[in-house]
Amino acid sequence: MNKQGLLIVLSGPSGVGKGTVCQALLGRMPGLAYSVSATTRPPRAGERHGVNYFFKTREEFESMIARDELLEWAEYVGNYYGTPRKFVEETMAGGRDVILEIDVQGALQVKRRYPDGIFVFLLPPSLEELRNRIRGRGTEPEEVIRSRLEAAVAELKQIVHYDYAVVNDRIEDAASRIEAIVTAEHCRRERVMSRVLEWIEEEVH
Amino acid sequence: MNKQGLLIVLSGPSGVGKGTVCQALLGRMPGLAYSVSATTRPPRAGERHGVNYFFKTREEFESMIARDELLEWAEYVGNYYGTPRKFVEETMAGGRDVILEIDVQGALQVKRRYPDGIFVFLLPPSLEELRNRIRGRGTEPEEVIRSRLEAAVAELKQIVHYDYAVVNDRIEDAASRIEAIVTAEHCRRERVMSRVLEWIEEEVH
Repeated sequence: MNKQGLLIVLSGPSGVGKGTVCQALLGRMPGLAYSVSATTRPPRAGERHGVNYFFKTREEFESMIARDELLEWAEYVGNYYGTPRKFVEETMAGGRDVILEIDVQGALQVKRRYPDGIFVFLLPPSLEELRNRIRGRGTEPEEVIRSRLEAAVAELKQIVHYDYAVVNDRIEDAASRIEAIVTAEHCRRERVMSRVLEWIEEEVH
Repeated sequence: MNKQGLLIVLSGPSGVGKGTVCQALLGRMPGLAYSVSATTRPPRAGERHGVNYFFKTREEFESMIARDELLEWAEYVGNYYGTPRKFVEETMAGGRDVILEIDVQGALQVKRRYPDGIFVFLLPPSLEELRNRIRGRGTEPEEVIRSRLEAAVAELKQIVHYDYAVVNDRIEDAASRIEAIVTAEHCRRERVMSRVLEWIEEEVH
């Protein structure tokens, strides 16, 4: 029905469970293509090139930046992370939907280039839950926890830039809601209308 | 999650199968409330007051019009048809979603009052299919068929006023897509955001 695939951007604060929900969604929607990120960080045990990440040298990554081959990128603790543009654009042009699972900063960069993307913000069931997840990560001093919580609240405020917000109460329920969002977006009138206009043309002539 | 229920308006050209799809949708979504129309036409065999229609005298109906108790109404072949407003508004205020299954003219009247409603246009799988359904209704002269087809094309053009368009290829598939639309609309950021703003307030104070 749609010639062009949709760009789905799944994002949300750190610790909310974006990766797990994204995997559950891909399990439900075999037609959905997952955009694999590029990084300069070394592979961890079990990680595969082209599946978990495209592993790049710093030189390779910096030349991708220079040639505008990344939809978004950032540097964290000395490593680059980014979204290769070519795969996303070619997959969409081929009529398949693509999902990016990225942090809030990356999502905002993507939105500047693709305002027509479907931006989904994943929410924790409660602020208490997010607090527990942040605390639960280790036995860091209260100061570090406090600063992470402030960062999480700052990320939560970015919800204003999104089209949808899905609560990650249970992984499968959250994935099912995102699946519904993708289905609904394919039914948006603007996306279906060209077909109807062709009928009307056909009928008139 | 949402204090106020959503208003879902299912409409489309005559003969497209609105009623059948609406029944299938109600079967899938037991929480969805069906708005029963009022009419002055006499009940047919098996039709029940309050289930299929609220059967009214002309005087009763005209007093409903005068008291602005109808969300939309029209007169066809000497009978009034309309949507009682009270049920719709009370059900939504109680947090339940309501579905109206009405024709294109009625939907446009409702949209004037409820621009925030979710307007879903049901489409035939093809113009050919709609032609066959219109022809298939009887052995009318070509002139009558022609004028009905023109009316159907005029109704198709009203698609521009809708939020979504769903193709009625198979009843259950069409109902499933409308179910996805309702789920997605509940996840729209504007509807979820107030909760997040409360969290942020809570965290700041």
